[in-house]
Amino acid sequence: MIILGIDPGYAIVGVGIIEYQGNHFRPIAYDAITTHASMATSLRLKTIYDDINYCLDRFKPDVVAIEELFFNSNAKTAIAVAQARGVLVVSATNRGIPVYEYTPLQIKQAVAGYGRADKSQVQHMVKSLLNLNAIPKPDDAADALAVAICHAHSSTMNDALGTNRL
Amino acid sequence: MIILGIDPGYAIVGVGIIEYQGNHFRPIAYDAITTHASMATSLRLKTIYDDINYCLDRFKPDVVAIEELFFNSNAKTAIAVAQARGVLVVSATNRGIPVYEYTPLQIKQAVAGYGRADKSQVQHMVKSLLNLNAIPKPDDAADALAVAICHAHSSTMNDALGTNRL
Repeated sequence: MIILGIDPGYAIVGVGIIEYQGNHFRPIAYDAITTHASMATSLRLKTIYDDINYCLDRFKPDVVAIEELFFNSNAKTAIAVAQARGVLVVSATNRGIPVYEYTPLQIKQAVAGYGRADKSQVQHMVKSLLNLNAIPKPDDAADALAVAICHAHSSTMNDALGTNRL
Repeated sequence: MIILGIDPGYAIVGVGIIEYQGNHFRPIAYDAITTHASMATSLRLKTIYDDINYCLDRFKPDVVAIEELFFNSNAKTAIAVAQARGVLVVSATNRGIPVYEYTPLQIKQAVAGYGRADKSQVQHMVKSLLNLNAIPKPDDAADALAVAICHAHSSTMNDALGTNRL
């Protein structure tokens, strides 16, 4: 099963693609889609749309896993990220690829074993589980790989219960 | 100039299309895109995507005008509406159609003449300006027509100043 994990954002969208087969992980690719603050909102959203479509077409994931959004203190940022997230979800759905969402708690629990793990613990587990030489950079790409790993660990349960399906 | 106005939403997206020529308005169509709460989020976003694309292809607007989002008290709703709004904006941008955004204050000012006009005053002005027999239903469609009228009234200034361009 090929899983494309997404850490949703507006200036930076983390993307991580892994293969999960018989309890083993294989990293395929990770990167970040970036849009610059000098660009118009409409063009930033289109860049995100075009770039995620490129990833979907190139890596042909069986499933997309994306982090759930929560309100933060900055209202403008939250709206901007949510707009981008809508674009990301519709891109996958247009291709008939199922989308699952996970909370930060679920991701930490799945990757590091407990929900209060800090960022660096999660990143070290991503490196270790994927057998990488270094922690993936930028952080957003590491976070995206963590979401993908979370889906792999949860997918059997998801199939049975239909939870987390977006 | 054909203007497609959008009142962004998740369960209901208002859409209103008008022609504006030599200071005269002509209503072309108005309706609401609806998605049901029983549908999965991903499919609700895809429905919005498909339906707005249908409107863009059928009415071929020169410009899209959309209401600006503000945080409301319900965080879940705000994220859901912002996700849908991202999908709406990217649909127009994919077709090379410029998108403009207006605040509720700007819309009330442009349609009813002052920013503190209430909903029913705005709706009556929409009916009157577009020479309709009745107030357009649902409210979301009337609001979408109001955004389109607002753009018509602001477009000369927009061309000169580049304001409100998304």
